[in-house]
Amino acid sequence: MTTNKGFCASVCRCFFEYSTPQILVIRSTKVGTLNRIIQALVLGYVIGYVCVLKKGYQDTDGVLSSVTTKVKGVAVTNTSDLGLRVWDVADYIIPPQEESSFFVLTNLIMTLNQTQSHCPENVGFDCVTDSDCKAGLSNTRGDGVQTGRCVNFSSVARTCEVLAWCPLELDLQPPDPPMLAGAENFTVLIKNSIRYPMFNFNKRNILPHVNKTYLQQCVFNRVTDPDCPIFRLRDMTTEAGEDFQTMAVHGGIMGVQISWFCDLDLPASWCVPKYTFRRLDNKDPENNVAPGYNFRFAKYYKTNNNKETRTLIKGFGIRFDVMVFGQAGKFNIIPTLLNIGAGLALLGLVTVVCDLIVLTCMTKRNLYKENKYSYVDDFELLPDGTP
Amino acid sequence: MTTNKGFCASVCRCFFEYSTPQILVIRSTKVGTLNRIIQALVLGYVIGYVCVLKKGYQDTDGVLSSVTTKVKGVAVTNTSDLGLRVWDVADYIIPPQEESSFFVLTNLIMTLNQTQSHCPENVGFDCVTDSDCKAGLSNTRGDGVQTGRCVNFSSVARTCEVLAWCPLELDLQPPDPPMLAGAENFTVLIKNSIRYPMFNFNKRNILPHVNKTYLQQCVFNRVTDPDCPIFRLRDMTTEAGEDFQTMAVHGGIMGVQISWFCDLDLPASWCVPKYTFRRLDNKDPENNVAPGYNFRFAKYYKTNNNKETRTLIKGFGIRFDVMVFGQAGKFNIIPTLLNIGAGLALLGLVTVVCDLIVLTCMTKRNLYKENKYSYVDDFELLPDGTP
Amino acid sequence: MTTNKGFCASVCRCFFEYSTPQILVIRSTKVGTLNRIIQALVLGYVIGYVCVLKKGYQDTDGVLSSVTTKVKGVAVTNTSDLGLRVWDVADYIIPPQEESSFFVLTNLIMTLNQTQSHCPENVGFDCVTDSDCKAGLSNTRGDGVQTGRCVNFSSVARTCEVLAWCPLELDLQPPDPPMLAGAENFTVLIKNSIRYPMFNFNKRNILPHVNKTYLQQCVFNRVTDPDCPIFRLRDMTTEAGEDFQTMAVHGGIMGVQISWFCDLDLPASWCVPKYTFRRLDNKDPENNVAPGYNFRFAKYYKTNNNKETRTLIKGFGIRFDVMVFGQAGKFNIIPTLLNIGAGLALLGLVTVVCDLIVLTCMTKRNLYKENKYSYVDDFELLPDGTP
Repeated sequence: MTTNKGFCASVCRCFFEYSTPQILVIRSTKVGTLNRIIQALVLGYVIGYVCVLKKGYQDTDGVLSSVTTKVKGVAVTNTSDLGLRVWDVADYIIPPQEESSFFVLTNLIMTLNQTQSHCPENVGFDCVTDSDCKAGLSNTRGDGVQTGRCVNFSSVARTCEVLAWCPLELDLQPPDPPMLAGAENFTVLIKNSIRYPMFNFNKRNILPHVNKTYLQQCVFNRVTDPDCPIFRLRDMTTEAGEDFQTMAVHGGIMGVQISWFCDLDLPASWCVPKYTFRRLDNKDPENNVAPGYNFRFAKYYKTNNNKETRTLIKGFGIRFDVMVFGQAGKFNIIPTLLNIGAGLALLGLVTVVCDLIVLTCMTKRNLYKENKYSYVDDFELLPDGTP
Repeated sequence: MTTNKGFCASVCRCFFEYSTPQILVIRSTKVGTLNRIIQALVLGYVIGYVCVLKKGYQDTDGVLSSVTTKVKGVAVTNTSDLGLRVWDVADYIIPPQEESSFFVLTNLIMTLNQTQSHCPENVGFDCVTDSDCKAGLSNTRGDGVQTGRCVNFSSVARTCEVLAWCPLELDLQPPDPPMLAGAENFTVLIKNSIRYPMFNFNKRNILPHVNKTYLQQCVFNRVTDPDCPIFRLRDMTTEAGEDFQTMAVHGGIMGVQISWFCDLDLPASWCVPKYTFRRLDNKDPENNVAPGYNFRFAKYYKTNNNKETRTLIKGFGIRFDVMVFGQAGKFNIIPTLLNIGAGLALLGLVTVVCDLIVLTCMTKRNLYKENKYSYVDDFELLPDGTP
Repeated sequence: MTTNKGFCASVCRCFFEYSTPQILVIRSTKVGTLNRIIQALVLGYVIGYVCVLKKGYQDTDGVLSSVTTKVKGVAVTNTSDLGLRVWDVADYIIPPQEESSFFVLTNLIMTLNQTQSHCPENVGFDCVTDSDCKAGLSNTRGDGVQTGRCVNFSSVARTCEVLAWCPLELDLQPPDPPMLAGAENFTVLIKNSIRYPMFNFNKRNILPHVNKTYLQQCVFNRVTDPDCPIFRLRDMTTEAGEDFQTMAVHGGIMGVQISWFCDLDLPASWCVPKYTFRRLDNKDPENNVAPGYNFRFAKYYKTNNNKETRTLIKGFGIRFDVMVFGQAGKFNIIPTLLNIGAGLALLGLVTVVCDLIVLTCMTKRNLYKENKYSYVDDFELLPDGTP
């Protein structure tokens, strides 16, 4: 019983013990000033960088976004093949809808009335006799399957005959100026709804103070109309430092960046999108193949005798990738406590740094050492181990 | 030699020194209780929040995902232009395949037999004489290029003549009820394979216990069939709090969210997808232009005399964006050690807080102070610097 | 005045005070060795793991990327319906352009000359008399809208008549070997520009030392041509451990992963892309419906009498999803300081661990305790509270 009671009391005593380090206070102008300067630096860092700049007292969330786009405008082309022709949105947006991107046709090479038949390959597959061609061969860089015959390409050149969509597309440079030069005046309405799920905060890039009438006639301008979500294509390339007409010849990729960085401790109306534009592909002609952006597509028809023909179009154009990014922050007790804790821990490091300086550089370092340190000696192995 | 030996011994002695702070133990019920309460709070936070809630002992990885979708169903329309017509998946999914999104046509305005020719502009480009129209002008909001002539639009109105795809589309409200009202019964099979590369963990939303026979006839239902990856379109809009028929008239964007939050310390079979549905676009008619979601596309034909005609379709519909997100966690020694370390560091802060209270608020604070602090005075500048 | 002066002096004295913990130095080979070993472990962790492995002295940034793809090659099919037919890029890439993905048609089931008319449903909708069919019924799994009549499907079977695009597609297995078996030799040029915005660092996957001539004839090979951005489709599936011809029959999803992990403290030329290939969909035939990847699309024609017909294509093929990921790091003073601070804080924990061992396990623990601890007793409540 006595042992038990003694043990119990001992545990109790232990439970009510509070251990706190013994402190040596050095009263010295030099040492004190040094200490306060280092403390001020750490406090300045914690308050200035962690709290003010990085907003360490906030919880943050990433943006969820949905984008729709709608291009408007018509362009005219005048070619010997097609005559005067008007291109509208159903003609030049390919494919007609994408998730967060749209492609505007600005230039094209058309090959009309192709049928599955035989014709001479383009220059590059030259031959002299049939033995230079191999029936059934289909080269990756060729346009069809060789029939094994060598035929006249022109009055001077002979090339291997192929089974292909004939006549073949001529491997030409794209027209310059671009066929749909008028595309620079097209406008695009970009509708963007965002959501910060953690804070249940929704917003869209058509701001509350913008009304229908304004939207029906405005065009984005960084100075005069910064809230208008309708962009003229030429303005976007100009902001990115590119010339629309030059870019339109070979095509390219434009990034439309919408950033939503919001401090939700401030009024919600201060959370507005910021638009920036940047060319994403590399226009440097060196070390490059197929500069710009183009792809081939076809329109298929059937003739009266049920034979399939197609119009092949090598379309050059600008793909606009709408990229939405952002982050929202709002006060939360947990990150606040974490950052206060980390700040206090950093203050503890002040002592480490000050001790280092005080005990090695100060003239009275031996006085300080004597008072700071006590010693227990326990050197069995070292005979001369006297302090 | 002696100096050398002395230096060597001094380094040795220094190496085998262990510095530990001198501790003052205060045995007091008040102070001890305070200490234990604050310790309990910190421990509770570390264990409860960091370890249990945030699973600080786990390494985490983000999800990689691939999605395919397949819509099934047919709808019927009956219009004066086209008569009775059946729409199947090749008709109403545009474009036929996308990466993680699909568009279902629900309503449309069709303009048949357009050709490149001249016709009067729609109302809004009114004129009285030819001088009100400007040859070559192509307004962004117009449908073609003005020829400079003013012609009769109807018996009462005159508008500028344009070169365009004629006849022009009439700027009408979309039909209500929607043309493809039957789209609400379409079903979509969403196949989703995910991967957590750090843990080499793969899974798909067709769970192992689901067999072929079940998959061929099931439809997702949160209560009765929560594991069926086949969704009826109407059910998805209903779960998002929207009425399918209302949404179908002007179109819209639906988010199909698949979340994969997995604790890989638990059996892999507990890692199952969770489906939620949300409308992403803004249906609020105020401060809005072009509410809903629509785009124009065309089918191109050639007539007997090789002239191109097209059918222009202004298609309204619902775009379903499949969004896959998630995070997996698994025990790892490194984050565990890091969190234990951070927890111990926080325990060190307990002393700071307790000291503050003990040395300023307790009645016996002077007794504690006397025992905790020793002083070295070194005030050369302050004459009255006595403690 | 005196009080004021005294208070002022007291604040001054307080400002110039420096508090440093009093330290007990234990000079013992055992304790010292233990201390140094634990210090070495912590230092090893901080330097080895945090600094060298995790590069804790660097600021990191995520990659922004834009991708364009261009497929080349032709394939031949020979069927009874179409005869010998060549397929080029405009035929087999559907849709013709996507943001970071491309689909290559490898197999297909074609249904020619469909018109809106009446025909018997496929087997599975069997009937005996008209009463087995319900006029107006449109089953999700059916192909059209029932007319309510029961008609001969073949000489032995009768099915419900439907209004649909007739003749209906026959529900057949896809041809094996695949129709466009030659697709394995197609090549794709993948152009990828990346950007680390925080460091204003741009790079593309066509490296500076690669010239135009090389690009026009190279094909990626992990050993001989690791820098060539042109990939043969078969090589990609082979690297992923798949057989192209097998995969081509039912289609599938391939992931083309481009990783850009760059240490920008090293020369920029060391920052090169790494390509890996992986099959993303599940080819396991168990618990699966519609394995592989296919979708239906149609080409629309008009006959001489202005009636719409279409060719329905059930296209099987491989979708290649280009996934770009990466992270760049560069020296920055702030994370460096943070990690040094955290390292020093960890060193503080060494004392906690050593104290635990020294004061409980060492034989001379009582000697150490006596020297380390001082006591203030303040037990009013516990009568036997003597130390």
